Amino acid sequence: MRIHAQVNPASPQAAEFDAARWGRLLAEMAGPGVVATHATDPAAFDAALAEAEVLFLCGPAALHDLPRRAPRLRWISYSSAGVEWLLKAGLPPGVTLTNASGTHVPKAAEYSLAAVLMLNNFIPALVTAQRAHRWAPRSGGTVAGKRVLILGMGALGGAAADALAAQGMVVLGNSQSGRPHPSVMEMTRGEGFRAQLPRAEFLLIALPLTPATHGLIGRAELDLLPPQAGVVNIGRGEILDTDALAAKLRDGSLGGAVLDTLPREPLPADSLLWDTPNLIITPHCGLYDPTAYAERCLRAFFANLSRFRGGEALHQVVCLDRGY
Amino acid sequence: MRIHAQVNPASPQAAEFDAARWGRLLAEMAGPGVVATHATDPAAFDAALAEAEVLFLCGPAALHDLPRRAPRLRWISYSSAGVEWLLKAGLPPGVTLTNASGTHVPKAAEYSLAAVLMLNNFIPALVTAQRAHRWAPRSGGTVAGKRVLILGMGALGGAAADALAAQGMVVLGNSQSGRPHPSVMEMTRGEGFRAQLPRAEFLLIALPLTPATHGLIGRAELDLLPPQAGVVNIGRGEILDTDALAAKLRDGSLGGAVLDTLPREPLPADSLLWDTPNLIITPHCGLYDPTAYAERCLRAFFANLSRFRGGEALHQVVCLDRGY
Repeated sequence: MRIHAQVNPASPQAAEFDAARWGRLLAEMAGPGVVATHATDPAAFDAALAEAEVLFLCGPAALHDLPRRAPRLRWISYSSAGVEWLLKAGLPPGVTLTNASGTHVPKAAEYSLAAVLMLNNFIPALVTAQRAHRWAPRSGGTVAGKRVLILGMGALGGAAADALAAQGMVVLGNSQSGRPHPSVMEMTRGEGFRAQLPRAEFLLIALPLTPATHGLIGRAELDLLPPQAGVVNIGRGEILDTDALAAKLRDGSLGGAVLDTLPREPLPADSLLWDTPNLIITPHCGLYDPTAYAERCLRAFFANLSRFRGGEALHQVVCLDRGY
Repeated sequence: MRIHAQVNPASPQAAEFDAARWGRLLAEMAGPGVVATHATDPAAFDAALAEAEVLFLCGPAALHDLPRRAPRLRWISYSSAGVEWLLKAGLPPGVTLTNASGTHVPKAAEYSLAAVLMLNNFIPALVTAQRAHRWAPRSGGTVAGKRVLILGMGALGGAAADALAAQGMVVLGNSQSGRPHPSVMEMTRGEGFRAQLPRAEFLLIALPLTPATHGLIGRAELDLLPPQAGVVNIGRGEILDTDALAAKLRDGSLGGAVLDTLPREPLPADSLLWDTPNLIITPHCGLYDPTAYAERCLRAFFANLSRFRGGEALHQVVCLDRGY
């Protein structure tokens, strides 16, 4: 069996998915009969495609004309959960796509907890006051008993729910399926989240980007939140209308926001978002754990490879219709 | 029995210790035979002192010449844990001082957790980059398994230890007594903390201000921390040399700091601390819970009052020699 790992050197994670780690885990986990290559340059990618049955990708790669260039390809494994670019590229029929859904779980739980605690402790507002050299104390109660609404109950949303429920918060949840979750007191599906927004002292967006979630949280949805609510986005930036968010932060109707993802990344230096009061931006780094991510991701890939060779169902399969 | 509550209107908590709450809890908890007064003006204070056996104070009051002005006084209960100004004023022999040690516990636990998670997620550095409109991702591992050293294992330090150990952190502790704590893996006493500093990825100061702790953490102590360590102060500002801290934040040898207390409060508008990189200042508000503090504090006072009248030992007694 021929497998190939293509690492885009422009990916912030490229160094972690280097040939050394790949080779070590290959030797440990792949078993006999696997012929594997690892490359970072596009020319090697073209050559490898001709033979590969399995592709492991870290960062974007040129996927045009795959049926001709990669006639034996049956499975692409991607090193992140965000596969919207792969779905746009279009996959030939018969090629399964898996992603790294769940790899971010421990860090996502910690970041979500940090973000909600920051909002509950007025950190965005205090940072804004600090910039103005203003001693302006803001105090409130603990998070215990307060309500947080989590949109998207996949691996990340579920991990956030566990971490926040452990602090005594009342966790409301919303997902496509509406499937119950042990840390969620009230689960809705689909549009049901609109009825939950007015009770959400904190809103945490943990949705994948799909046609259905693109622009889902705009002015109308933010207006449904109670006064002084806090907003966190750990999903994709395009889900949240940041112009509407910024307007409500500027006029003081929202208490604060912590955004790890933005509609444009990197955020341009002249964006008005940088100076929006009561807003803290973490530049798409909050969920990434460089000490563990690549190891965890590649171990999941090689475990999947063993399933693939044994004819078993793969884990982390992306549903092409849903988009995640 | 005559008791008097004097509330300084300049105290940020004055509104919470108003006559209505005092009266309600007095009716509920004081029992028969207690004649109580509540005042905010200094003239009423002088009049009340002449008769009072017990004083409840919220905020500073004029305590000069107490043996003459308050001949029957036997107990002063203060509405905060920080009693250094009372000790400076000097108490007549035979007057017991109690404070509100422990009243801040739930909020202190949450604030400590928030501060350490912020440091672990590079929030101070990311906020500094945001001010400069710089998209500069910083990622690291979760706090689980990392070491935090807590100086001061009183009510606040102990609550912080519990909250941080619950995240899987290795908690090192130091106190005057060196008494073991269930959430602390390694406890030292007195100067023993110096041997712990080089292993402390995070330092959390939760000490009371006493002659022994004044200026305890200066340049030499900060130099013992490992590179990129994070510092939190929830004790008193005078314990930490903020000039030394700022120098190490500016030269990049410390990773970040979160300070709830400062040597001068309010911090003057022209202080260089406001603009120190990788520093977040919360203006002495992080541990205060306006929704619960006064209620909890007054309930503890009236519970103590019942002990006092029954001749039992009071709780929250300040040791005048130790200073806390």
